[in-house]
Parts: sequence; structure tokens; C-alpha cells
Amino acid sequence: MSETEFKEVPIGTSAVFTKTVSESDVYQYAGISGDFSPNHIDEEYMKEGRFGARVAHGTLLLGFMSAASARLYLGRTASMGYDRVRFIKPVFFGDTIRTEYKVREYDHTKKRVFADVTCTNQRGETVAVAVNVRAYIG
Amino acid sequence: MSETEFKEVPIGTSAVFTKTVSESDVYQYAGISGDFSPNHIDEEYMKEGRFGARVAHGTLLLGFMSAASARLYLGRTASMGYDRVRFIKPVFFGDTIRTEYKVREYDHTKKRVFADVTCTNQRGETVAVAVNVRAYIG
Amino acid sequence: MSETEFKEVPIGTSAVFTKTVSESDVYQYAGISGDFSPNHIDEEYMKEGRFGARVAHGTLLLGFMSAASARLYLGRTASMGYDRVRFIKPVFFGDTIRTEYKVREYDHTKKRVFADVTCTNQRGETVAVAVNVRAYIG
Amino acid sequence: MSETEFKEVPIGTSAVFTKTVSESDVYQYAGISGDFSPNHIDEEYMKEGRFGARVAHGTLLLGFMSAASARLYLGRTASMGYDRVRFIKPVFFGDTIRTEYKVREYDHTKKRVFADVTCTNQRGETVAVAVNVRAYIG
Amino acid sequence: MSETEFKEVPIGTSAVFTKTVSESDVYQYAGISGDFSPNHIDEEYMKEGRFGARVAHGTLLLGFMSAASARLYLGRTASMGYDRVRFIKPVFFGDTIRTEYKVREYDHTKKRVFADVTCTNQRGETVAVAVNVRAYIG
Amino acid sequence: MSETEFKEVPIGTSAVFTKTVSESDVYQYAGISGDFSPNHIDEEYMKEGRFGARVAHGTLLLGFMSAASARLYLGRTASMGYDRVRFIKPVFFGDTIRTEYKVREYDHTKKRVFADVTCTNQRGETVAVAVNVRAYIG
Repeated sequence: MSETEFKEVPIGTSAVFTKTVSESDVYQYAGISGDFSPNHIDEEYMKEGRFGARVAHGTLLLGFMSAASARLYLGRTASMGYDRVRFIKPVFFGDTIRTEYKVREYDHTKKRVFADVTCTNQRGETVAVAVNVRAYIG
Repeated sequence: MSETEFKEVPIGTSAVFTKTVSESDVYQYAGISGDFSPNHIDEEYMKEGRFGARVAHGTLLLGFMSAASARLYLGRTASMGYDRVRFIKPVFFGDTIRTEYKVREYDHTKKRVFADVTCTNQRGETVAVAVNVRAYIG
Repeated sequence: MSETEFKEVPIGTSAVFTKTVSESDVYQYAGISGDFSPNHIDEEYMKEGRFGARVAHGTLLLGFMSAASARLYLGRTASMGYDRVRFIKPVFFGDTIRTEYKVREYDHTKKRVFADVTCTNQRGETVAVAVNVRAYIG
Repeated sequence: MSETEFKEVPIGTSAVFTKTVSESDVYQYAGISGDFSPNHIDEEYMKEGRFGARVAHGTLLLGFMSAASARLYLGRTASMGYDRVRFIKPVFFGDTIRTEYKVREYDHTKKRVFADVTCTNQRGETVAVAVNVRAYIG
Repeated sequence: MSETEFKEVPIGTSAVFTKTVSESDVYQYAGISGDFSPNHIDEEYMKEGRFGARVAHGTLLLGFMSAASARLYLGRTASMGYDRVRFIKPVFFGDTIRTEYKVREYDHTKKRVFADVTCTNQRGETVAVAVNVRAYIG
Repeated sequence: MSETEFKEVPIGTSAVFTKTVSESDVYQYAGISGDFSPNHIDEEYMKEGRFGARVAHGTLLLGFMSAASARLYLGRTASMGYDRVRFIKPVFFGDTIRTEYKVREYDHTKKRVFADVTCTNQRGETVAVAVNVRAYIG
């Protein structure tokens, strides 16, 4: 694999993306994805449940993971997928989520890179984790 | 687990969500997630690469998976995560994606349900797969 | 009219769509529709008036009516229009609106269905009503 | 009714709002309203039907009617509703819609104004009509 | 310059556009522009700084200036640019911004018009100023 | 000025932001800014004029300038304004705009940095230029 094809950064290198989740993020995300579950858009329904308020879609965090990976430029690569995505704690409107994308290892045969991704809220609690797989796309 | 807590639908039951991916979906998704990788918003850059044109974010498909799950109402549940998410083929602007969410099994001890999720384009090609895990949230 | 053309559900059948109206709903609606009346986007102006705060566009509720009708799948139909749409009470940002779409009668000659639509807020107050007319579109 | 309360423009006065309907208008409208009917977001489904392509939500036109009314400033008024809203022809992505809002009459007792509203496409075809009722809101 | 080409309004004529800046305005603006600076989307980061909270992008105000100019119809003109744009005070979410666009002078040779533009918040403080240049575009 | 206050990058350092302008960018920008000039949203009107088609708002490019500046991290700074912003050529939907933000000089007394900003389209034509002023904000 030539230098021009794939920009290999050292293992352990990480990139961070931080954003305060707004009501408009969640509402627009519902509008794009088509997920109008009451968990995200019905405050009255959520008041009565365990969470007590509307929460962000778990998959919105995958978007932040995608953004963090884009900040660690690896050349012409594309995301091949994710392993063991886990939504650990609910994310409420107004929470500030810090997403860290850290290179774990390379598979030189398949021209792939694996990274550990972690989303943390403003209280330092881990709200989601996943492993991302990226590959060279020419 | 009482009837009021969790609505158990038979194994094999599925729900479908279909949407033609628009340029505005991808651009708004970039705007919410913060992923401004040239793969999604730079047509000139993509013309020179393997794909030949801008493509949707892989994680946008996770949103469609989330939407399909919301159409198979299972009571007060929340997505706990995804296993083995794989983006198999690129999704271009204008592609119509049919997402099927099919119940695979229940874990009664942990009050969880597992589902196979598949995204197919208008040519019948599988563009993404994943396993979703949902749990009762009270 | 064949079964494949029009899926006739019993009179009195209803579908419900519920959503908490967000500031972003109203602002995006202004942006799409082009209605930038101060009633919706100027808090200072509204403080001095009868409502006391910015309100949602009445026609946004027509969108919710449209969403509720889409949840009562009637086959290849399209909305032909509305009769006697009335905006009865203002809808404020944060109000949770429950929209019920109930089949009232069929006109078999013209292949049409009429439905009563009612929007109610979280205090049980009726905020809007209308009659919707849908027709088979082949 | 004093001058400060209600700005009475002569009967027959009209205001016009013109906009080319974009794919993003329809997709964002689906996202706000929650109406994800295939009529608007599934090109493959629509290809096989009478329309041949995705169409705008009829109720999106009500938004344009609302915008046209906002251009004919009438003081502190709010829309009370619409009578006989009819969606006459489908509106496709890329159609340019000219919406004319024309004052028809005043009801001085109830402090109301009635207006005829007409939406026309770029071929001069009437695509929608309605009667709007506005009232003084203090 | 003929009447049909350029609609010359008297010097000193002004148009006003007023809008309460919403969180969704700023977040959507970040999404369109690509400016994800923490100043606008990271509440925790901003709490520790001089402003104390997230602020709107200064360039969002240029959009309001553009809107105000559009309300003072000058015929087939286009904005040629701005001189001495200054962002004087931060604009917070919820601030109501009144933008006044006032014609200063005409350059008949170059078929141009110059205007002074001022943005003021709800406390009467000037938050931004600029000079706009518009020209006839045929 | 200490290192912690202001991250001074060498004069001549530049950052680039590239984006293909979508119809949804322009329409959402109209929606946020309130600038509904026919130049941007009325295709029929524009067909008859010099440009021949809808164009992006000039001020949208200011957003791209803002995004490019955010990619050249300068510590806790905020944009103080712009000098001599000029929109030189129209930007059409689908044009790919490369925005370069290049540090020109520092004013150590006022803790300010000046940068030359240039927007170029896919044919290498300069479509806009400006000078940006940023300052330390603590």
C-alpha cells in the first residue's frame, strides 16, 4: 500500500468531536431517518417513563462517531461498518457529547483500520461505545 | 415480563421502511452529525475516485434501521445497540432504500429482543446489514 | 372498486400521531413555507400581544393531520383537500399535540373517503379541527 | 375597530408568493410533519402509479398560502382557518408555484377578513385553491 | 437606466427584518456552512470563556442583512458585496435581532446602490453593522 | 499574549474548506436567513434574467469562509468582521466551492489576526473574496 493511497497514522492516535445535542438535532434527525418513536418527540409520553424526558436517538451518536473519524484524515477511506455498538446511557437534549475516535490496529492485507470510539457526556459518563472499521476506497 | 411491559411479537415478524435518499438527506445529515468528509459533499473529489459520485453516510442507514424498528411497535423499548453493522455497497443520491427489520429472538432473562436488519437498494442489492438489540425501558 | 385499488377500513377506525412541537419545527416550517410572520419568529413582538409568546403556524397542524392520515394506510390514495379547517387555540413551543384521524364515511361512486381530524394539546384542549377528503389515485 | 387594531386593505387587494418547490422542501416537510407517505419519499413506488414521480404534500401548499397572507400585512391578525381547501393537480419537485392571496370581504362584527387563495404552477394550471379566514388577535 | 431595469427608491428609505435567533437557526447554520467551531455548538466549552454561553455565527447576521435588503425591492439586483462588516457584540440564542437596511446613495454610472445595514438586539444594542453594495443584474 | 491565550500560526498558513453547493443548502439558507429573494428560489423568474438559473446567496459564501477559518484553529478567537467582501461571479446549484483562508498579518497590540479569504469554483474561477478579522475572546 503506497503512501498516496492510505495515510497511516500511528496506533493510538485519536481525534475528538464535541457537540452539545440540541432539540433541533434530534428533531431533524427524526425527520431524516424517519424514526418518529415517542422516545424522541413526545415529551408527555416520556415524562411517565424511566427516562423522564425525550432522549436523542442512539444512532445519532453513530453520526458523531462518523464526524470524529472524519477529523482524523486517513486519505481515501470509507467506513465499512461498526462492531458492538452499545448505547449505555440516555442522551438528553442539552447534553454535551465528546466523541473520541482512537486508532486501534491496521489490517494491512485487507487495507483496513480499526478504531475504538467512545462518547462521553459532560459529567464524564460513557454514553456509547463502538468499534469502527474503515477501508481504502481508491 | 407482563403484557403491559413488553409487547412480544412472534419471531420472524418484520417491519419495512422505504425511502429514496435525497441530496438534502445527506447534506442535512452532514450538518447534524458534523461529518463533512468529502465523500458526501464534494462532487469533484468523488468524480476522481472509485465511487464516481458523492455517497450517503453509512451511518445514515442506521437511522433507517432505527425507523424500521419504530414501525414494529414493541412497547416501551429502547435500542441498546447494534452488532456487526456492515456497509456493503455505496448508496448514491436518488437510490431508494428498503430497510427490513425482522425479529430473530428474545432473551427473556434480560428482557431483550434481537433483530436482523437489512437495507436493499432499488436493484435488489443488499447495501447494509446489522443486528439490533432492543430492551424494555419501563 | 377492487381490493387492490383501495383498502377500505371500517367507518370509525382511527389513527393517531403525537408530537411535541419544537422551536425547530416552527422555525424550519417558516423556512420552508416562507411565512415569516412575527407571530412565529419574533418573541419580543409577541410578548406585547394577546398570546404572550411565539406560536406555531396553524398550517403546521395540517401537516400533523397529513401524518396521522398516513398512519391509517388506505392504499394508493392522495389527499384531495380539507373542509372547515379551524385553528381554535394557539399552539406554543413545547406543547404536545395529539392528532386523531377518524374515518367518517365513504363515497363509493367517487372513490373517496372522508375523515374527521382533531388536534388536542397536553391539557386535553382541542386546538384544531378539520375534515379531510382522500381519493384513490391508481 | 380602530386603525391601530386592524389594518383594513381594500377588497380585491392581493399579495403573491412564488417559490420553486425543491426536493429539500418536500423532504424537510415530511420530517417536520411526520408524513412519510410513499407518495412523497419513495420514487420507485411512485413510478408505478398514476403520478409517475414523487409529489409534494398538498398541505405544503397551505404553507405557501400562509406565506402569501403574511406578505399582505393586516396588523395583529392570526389565521383562524381555511374553508374548502382543494388540491387540484399534483405538484412535482421543480414546479414553480405562484400563490395569490386576495382579500374577498370583511366581517366587521367578528373582526374577520376572508381571502381567496389560489396556487398556480409554471404552466398556468391551478393546483390548489382555498378560502382563508383571519382575525384580529390584539 | 430605465424604470424597468432598476427601481430607484429615495435615499434614506429603509426596510426592516426582525427575528428571534433560535438554537435551531445556529445549529442549521453550522450544518450548512460547515462552521462547527465550539463557539456555536459546545455549551460546556463556552461556559468557561468570556461569553459564558454558545453564540450565533457572526455571518448569520449577514443573512439577516440579506433578508432585510430583499424586503426593499429594488428590481433585478444582486448583492455585489459588503464593506466594513463588524460584529460588535455577541448574539445569544433567544436574542431578537432587528436588522435595518437603509439606502445611502446611488452610483448611476455603475448602476449600483449602497446601503447602511445595522443589527440591533432587544436591548437596543447595536450588534453588527455593514455597508451593502447591490447592482443591477438584468 | 501568552501561548495559552492565542495560538499564533505563521503568516501565510492556510486552511481549506470545500463543498458542492446543493439546492438544499440554498433553500435552508433562505429559510434561516429569511432572504426569499426570487434570485434563489424562483427558477422561472431566473430563467428570464442574465444568470439563467437560481443562484446561491452571496452571504452563504461568508459561511464557508467562516468554516474555513474554523479549520485553522487559532485558540479562543471570534470573528470581528470582514472587509471588502466581493461576490464576483454567481454560484449555481451543483458548483463545488473551494474556500481558502490564509493568514496575512497579526496586530499584536489589539490581539487581532487578518486573513485573506478566497472562494473558487470547480472551473478555477474566483467567485468571492474577503478579508477576515479575528480577535482573542478569552
